[in-house]
Amino acid sequence: MARSILLINGPNLNLLGTREPHLYGSDTLDNVVSSAQKQAASLSIAIDAFQSNHEGAIIDRIHAARGKVDAVIINAGALTHTSVGIRDALTGVDIPFVEVHVTNVHMRESFRHQSYLSDKAEAVICGLGVYGYTASIEFAARHMKPRKQSQL
Amino acid sequence: MARSILLINGPNLNLLGTREPHLYGSDTLDNVVSSAQKQAASLSIAIDAFQSNHEGAIIDRIHAARGKVDAVIINAGALTHTSVGIRDALTGVDIPFVEVHVTNVHMRESFRHQSYLSDKAEAVICGLGVYGYTASIEFAARHMKPRKQSQL
Amino acid sequence: MARSILLINGPNLNLLGTREPHLYGSDTLDNVVSSAQKQAASLSIAIDAFQSNHEGAIIDRIHAARGKVDAVIINAGALTHTSVGIRDALTGVDIPFVEVHVTNVHMRESFRHQSYLSDKAEAVICGLGVYGYTASIEFAARHMKPRKQSQL
Amino acid sequence: MARSILLINGPNLNLLGTREPHLYGSDTLDNVVSSAQKQAASLSIAIDAFQSNHEGAIIDRIHAARGKVDAVIINAGALTHTSVGIRDALTGVDIPFVEVHVTNVHMRESFRHQSYLSDKAEAVICGLGVYGYTASIEFAARHMKPRKQSQL
Amino acid sequence: MARSILLINGPNLNLLGTREPHLYGSDTLDNVVSSAQKQAASLSIAIDAFQSNHEGAIIDRIHAARGKVDAVIINAGALTHTSVGIRDALTGVDIPFVEVHVTNVHMRESFRHQSYLSDKAEAVICGLGVYGYTASIEFAARHMKPRKQSQL
Amino acid sequence: MARSILLINGPNLNLLGTREPHLYGSDTLDNVVSSAQKQAASLSIAIDAFQSNHEGAIIDRIHAARGKVDAVIINAGALTHTSVGIRDALTGVDIPFVEVHVTNVHMRESFRHQSYLSDKAEAVICGLGVYGYTASIEFAARHMKPRKQSQL
Amino acid sequence: MARSILLINGPNLNLLGTREPHLYGSDTLDNVVSSAQKQAASLSIAIDAFQSNHEGAIIDRIHAARGKVDAVIINAGALTHTSVGIRDALTGVDIPFVEVHVTNVHMRESFRHQSYLSDKAEAVICGLGVYGYTASIEFAARHMKPRKQSQL
Amino acid sequence: MARSILLINGPNLNLLGTREPHLYGSDTLDNVVSSAQKQAASLSIAIDAFQSNHEGAIIDRIHAARGKVDAVIINAGALTHTSVGIRDALTGVDIPFVEVHVTNVHMRESFRHQSYLSDKAEAVICGLGVYGYTASIEFAARHMKPRKQSQL
Amino acid sequence: MARSILLINGPNLNLLGTREPHLYGSDTLDNVVSSAQKQAASLSIAIDAFQSNHEGAIIDRIHAARGKVDAVIINAGALTHTSVGIRDALTGVDIPFVEVHVTNVHMRESFRHQSYLSDKAEAVICGLGVYGYTASIEFAARHMKPRKQSQL
Amino acid sequence: MARSILLINGPNLNLLGTREPHLYGSDTLDNVVSSAQKQAASLSIAIDAFQSNHEGAIIDRIHAARGKVDAVIINAGALTHTSVGIRDALTGVDIPFVEVHVTNVHMRESFRHQSYLSDKAEAVICGLGVYGYTASIEFAARHMKPRKQSQL
Amino acid sequence: MARSILLINGPNLNLLGTREPHLYGSDTLDNVVSSAQKQAASLSIAIDAFQSNHEGAIIDRIHAARGKVDAVIINAGALTHTSVGIRDALTGVDIPFVEVHVTNVHMRESFRHQSYLSDKAEAVICGLGVYGYTASIEFAARHMKPRKQSQL
Amino acid sequence: MARSILLINGPNLNLLGTREPHLYGSDTLDNVVSSAQKQAASLSIAIDAFQSNHEGAIIDRIHAARGKVDAVIINAGALTHTSVGIRDALTGVDIPFVEVHVTNVHMRESFRHQSYLSDKAEAVICGLGVYGYTASIEFAARHMKPRKQSQL
Repeated sequence: MARSILLINGPNLNLLGTREPHLYGSDTLDNVVSSAQKQAASLSIAIDAFQSNHEGAIIDRIHAARGKVDAVIINAGALTHTSVGIRDALTGVDIPFVEVHVTNVHMRESFRHQSYLSDKAEAVICGLGVYGYTASIEFAARHMKPRKQSQL
Repeated sequence: MARSILLINGPNLNLLGTREPHLYGSDTLDNVVSSAQKQAASLSIAIDAFQSNHEGAIIDRIHAARGKVDAVIINAGALTHTSVGIRDALTGVDIPFVEVHVTNVHMRESFRHQSYLSDKAEAVICGLGVYGYTASIEFAARHMKPRKQSQL
Repeated sequence: MARSILLINGPNLNLLGTREPHLYGSDTLDNVVSSAQKQAASLSIAIDAFQSNHEGAIIDRIHAARGKVDAVIINAGALTHTSVGIRDALTGVDIPFVEVHVTNVHMRESFRHQSYLSDKAEAVICGLGVYGYTASIEFAARHMKPRKQSQL
Repeated sequence: MARSILLINGPNLNLLGTREPHLYGSDTLDNVVSSAQKQAASLSIAIDAFQSNHEGAIIDRIHAARGKVDAVIINAGALTHTSVGIRDALTGVDIPFVEVHVTNVHMRESFRHQSYLSDKAEAVICGLGVYGYTASIEFAARHMKPRKQSQL
Repeated sequence: MARSILLINGPNLNLLGTREPHLYGSDTLDNVVSSAQKQAASLSIAIDAFQSNHEGAIIDRIHAARGKVDAVIINAGALTHTSVGIRDALTGVDIPFVEVHVTNVHMRESFRHQSYLSDKAEAVICGLGVYGYTASIEFAARHMKPRKQSQL
Repeated sequence: MARSILLINGPNLNLLGTREPHLYGSDTLDNVVSSAQKQAASLSIAIDAFQSNHEGAIIDRIHAARGKVDAVIINAGALTHTSVGIRDALTGVDIPFVEVHVTNVHMRESFRHQSYLSDKAEAVICGLGVYGYTASIEFAARHMKPRKQSQL
Repeated sequence: MARSILLINGPNLNLLGTREPHLYGSDTLDNVVSSAQKQAASLSIAIDAFQSNHEGAIIDRIHAARGKVDAVIINAGALTHTSVGIRDALTGVDIPFVEVHVTNVHMRESFRHQSYLSDKAEAVICGLGVYGYTASIEFAARHMKPRKQSQL
Repeated sequence: MARSILLINGPNLNLLGTREPHLYGSDTLDNVVSSAQKQAASLSIAIDAFQSNHEGAIIDRIHAARGKVDAVIINAGALTHTSVGIRDALTGVDIPFVEVHVTNVHMRESFRHQSYLSDKAEAVICGLGVYGYTASIEFAARHMKPRKQSQL
Repeated sequence: MARSILLINGPNLNLLGTREPHLYGSDTLDNVVSSAQKQAASLSIAIDAFQSNHEGAIIDRIHAARGKVDAVIINAGALTHTSVGIRDALTGVDIPFVEVHVTNVHMRESFRHQSYLSDKAEAVICGLGVYGYTASIEFAARHMKPRKQSQL
Repeated sequence: MARSILLINGPNLNLLGTREPHLYGSDTLDNVVSSAQKQAASLSIAIDAFQSNHEGAIIDRIHAARGKVDAVIINAGALTHTSVGIRDALTGVDIPFVEVHVTNVHMRESFRHQSYLSDKAEAVICGLGVYGYTASIEFAARHMKPRKQSQL
Repeated sequence: MARSILLINGPNLNLLGTREPHLYGSDTLDNVVSSAQKQAASLSIAIDAFQSNHEGAIIDRIHAARGKVDAVIINAGALTHTSVGIRDALTGVDIPFVEVHVTNVHMRESFRHQSYLSDKAEAVICGLGVYGYTASIEFAARHMKPRKQSQL
Repeated sequence: MARSILLINGPNLNLLGTREPHLYGSDTLDNVVSSAQKQAASLSIAIDAFQSNHEGAIIDRIHAARGKVDAVIINAGALTHTSVGIRDALTGVDIPFVEVHVTNVHMRESFRHQSYLSDKAEAVICGLGVYGYTASIEFAARHMKPRKQSQL
């Protein structure tokens, strides 16, 4: 059974590459995902990518990953700072995850300095631009343990 | 016209019985709902159960209950701590409600000590496990007043 | 050896049923206690009831219960918000307890939102009126483990 | 190319005119929208109206407006106080917006005094009742600059 | 008896149109007042305008309006954030009032986010520029009730 | 039926006149009580005086006064700042009361600036020395309404 | 040289007796002043009364009293909570003063619980209605020391 | 006249040696007291020991010590964090005291980091186990000044 | 055109030299002003001095200086901590200013540590006594740029 | 001129691999540095490594790097949370830097959630273990701009 | 192998006995150290004493003690309140330690009430003067466990 | 014996004139020191200058000045906001000091608004640029009292 990563992007990250490029760079989400998949393939890892602007849809997607995914890489965007539900979903399905932000959130509004995910994450990366996804995949590749079988 | 209760469960409660059983016990949500319906039937009360991981869907469901339901029993899960919208929906449709939590939220992270529902609820129960639903139904059965007709 | 519950009521609860009935209802404490005893008897549980307006007397009473009682149900009234001593007494004798409030404390002054007992309680119930005692007894009946023998 | 405004109403505003009329008045949302459209037509402005109880749907709708709308008028309801995602969507698509509240939020609970939109809005109006929409349209009519073309 | 509005402008608003025009625009206070009076006249409303840099003088002026004015429109400028006295004067004479700010105070220093007037105002408008006065007058015209006779 | 006042002094006030005389003066509590009784007799008022260092005893004494006393004058000493129980007792028996402090508590440690009684008191006096009792009795004499009959 | 008291009333107290009589009673400021003067005369004390809605005018008046007045009785109204200047004036002229409020400020908005005068006052009285002035004068009569000669 | 120390133990310290021995060790309070008395006797000091779960009883005991005791050693237990009354009693009788805690309170809940006694104590010791009492007596023996005669 | 400085002193600084000389020294304001004028004259600078206890008068004076003065040196006294209006006046007329305090405000009450002027000032000096004025003038002389012409 | 990175490790990181290996892993600092140098060499980058437990020595080392280094990678250890001096040194020499932590600081004590470096860093990485250094070098290699020449 | 204690004194403790003797007493650090060594010798314990005003030097010294010392007694002086590095060093080398302060820090500025060491210490002693060192050594002698061998 | 001043500059001030000149100006520290020495010489004062990036070295230098220096002028740079040790050193040697900052710290990050030195300083100067040193020397020259002889 090949190893598998679920790559989640939250609200407004569908605008990546087209919105505020001085902050977010010019790579689109499609570019990011296909680069990630190429990188992962070279490491014998499958990447399933999911983007949504809906908190509930992200929770549903995390639930569906139970027992099928070895790690989650998540850029929850704005929901990082407001969603207890995604925190609970990630701990509920018991899949290790890495929290990624394209920008350095510590340079921005103070409400972006608080995250409901960080203290449950394996690691937190911010400000590396889209290379943050690359580093997360590399890190996951090095550290992923065999997945837990779903009891569902 | 028989009396009627709407039983709402919020994000991640679909995992009940399968997630962190040391915290939440081993009853699944289906078990809980059918037990509740049996208990309620013996009190001549109909129970309509609804679970969603989507805040918007919960708000929609509360609106739909206006004039049709005598009481709401709600375990809003993670949304307890973050959703002004559910608070507004419950006060907007003017149906009395009981707030239930399976675990004792006061033992957990400090952000779980704050609720947008408690000061508008008839009562708040936490830590009784799934018996919390049972007690809520019994309480509602004893105190439910004739429902207001919908003006919609 | 029959099972046994200690039911503690704190300051001003001797006024129950005679004080602010719009908040507390019209059942007197004597009514509440004898109802509780009837309910418990039907479950083969003995209930010992104690009310005091003195923090020290409540602590003394909890100490005396060590090794003789399987569960405590406590409505510490005003002392809920100010007594570290009762918290320490309950954890010191190592008897599981349920925290009950007749009214929904979350609707009242902000200093009533803080409790020195909640994070050590098995469960917390508020706003169910005197039915809160009934539900607590039922819960205890379902969950009481064999008592620890006193080492005193 | 005619000028165009997107009028967004958030959670529970579908209840307008039927909920808590002492707070919100008796105009329904349909009335408000058709009045707004008549007023706007007289100013050669098209108004597209959208209401949803779902944060994600509102974000999607804002994205869809990029390059097609000259201004947004938004009453985000409860999401005003909790949604970083809508804030990010509005700044992401770079369309100027006015924040409107039917009631005077400063008279209400303290959590309603905080808004994730206000410091990014052109203007903030509260307590004018449904006339707040009228004033916003008039203001937008006077100040709208030619829209930016979408790069999507 | 014709309807009457008292239009109060507080400290530094005499500089309007000449100070920081990128923030406040280029209309002078005289322009604003005469426009307001024309607009009001067309609605059969008399407007009495008063500007002062002295808190005490503004309080005196509000007292003098008791029983003679149907509504107050007030841009208290810097005193918005520091004057309990103006708050007390407005509630003391029991005349409904609208709070107006030319700029969007939520974009500025955090001490400008607090107002001693907002929770007593009928409505609060900020960021509409001088059109804020126009909208306030229109709002007052629609909602003004017959004035209370002075008991002085 | 003659009018009646209960004069309560809390912890450490038995030391009055003997402790820190630069703060508290040299009148002993006995002096204070007999002066108060003489003053009251001249106004046809009976004064019952009670001092205790025990919160519970003070609560018990307040309960005993229900229906028998027209007003309470209370210097709760240190319990002013920590006792929710006395607050609840006073509101529970529904007897109007005046809060008195011999010293000006605002000059002292910051924890003495907070009182659990003040917002429920008719009036608050501090720093008048023992004349504070005199003024309270005079005030009570002028304002006491016929007492409520006890329902106990 | 007869003894002398300066009685200062701050903003909005000129409305006394005519504004919010449920809060402030029906005695006008003129009544209060002439009663105070009669009471004082019987104690061989002259009372000079001053009311202003202007902080600066109150400061000027306090300066003018230096060396001519034995005590100040001040109800600074709204300025109690905002004026460091009056605090500095009172300590600058080194005249002992009593702080009086007609209403019980502790029952009102939280910003009224903070005073810039209390920790410098001899005593603080609130909630006694206009009898608060009477008690202050009596207190001052008992405790006034011979005034300091002005050095000005 | 031999030197004399009053050793006070507050709420729940009667459980010492029998409660949570991993925290408090296995010496009972009786052991601790008789060891202390032996140690003190060797230093020609008499030790009077007192334990109570009642704040009021501790205050009474402190008052009784006035003029009869040279130093107090106090482990006020839970009352450390909540009793202004004991603080006032100790400063009122003007006897120097040492504050002792068996456990290191800084390792425990944050409310145990605040003490109403520490800033009035000669010294504060925590975490030394029952040796804390020994060290306090030794310290007192070295530093005790001749006692003040009681004025009572 | 000679260079010109406006020297403003706020509330209670007319007492300089006569009030609390241990804090403020014994130079009167008149001495300070004439020394300043002599010093300035030697630098070919005219100094206009203004003192008022009225916030409004200080604002008016600042407005009057627009286009006529190259720098302001201001000791706003108590208004430093409470006046947004003076802050707005100084930024409104766009004249650079130095904030001076005779005493070291950091040694005094905590409310004196906050200033509404400091973050807009060129420099802040405190604790230098009256030499603070001298240093400010010297600093201004070295750094004053040619004044902006008034547009009024 | 080859590109150059300065790799700084702060207090206690000399213990890496020997201290709390469950937190920090078993790679020693020497291992980490030589791995980093190998990785960098393959990218034609020179790495200069520096570790110190002295804040001042770290500041001195940063100063020495001015004009000689293209990027800094810094794990300031405990100084992250307390050193304004290192922040000022890094901004003073104007060299871009990445902040790295071996552990996920968000899982640890709350004082570790605050950093004086983050808002000035290009990026922040925590919890990746020693791979955090690898990722930082890779990131720097991709983004390093030609260094500024020193003006010293 | 004899038992061994490292006695660390932080910044400014080299001034002991010469600085502020009313606070710190008149024993010099040399006196304290030689007394401690005599006391320890009588208990077959070697004491190594170290004083530095440099945080880094203290960290280095703690590292050097790994595997060579059974206990640390530390008076970190001012660094108590600011050094995360010393905390990390002490937990990193895993040697139990006692925190000592000569004065009662709870009587002094509020920033001295916070310690980065206390929650990791075995015990905390303050206000015992130099006897605090004596008591710490006695305590260590009673409780020291065989040291861990260094892995370095 | 000539008078003597110790001029201390803390971390990063060695970069003066070369770092962020728009903030700090272009005078180097060497320039500043030699100007200061010239100015002082003309006043018959010797200036000893010391700069270090090491907190411990600054503390050592202050100790060395005991009894040899009449005043300290200190720009502690970043250590202003974090060093309790320097505060303690300055109060420990009992030499009066002036706190100087080249920039106006109130315009910068909020953590720069807090100083551990200000409430112990004679005076605080910020924003005067390097003229701040000049003014401090002039001030010291006017106010220096004969130095205390060292007891070391």
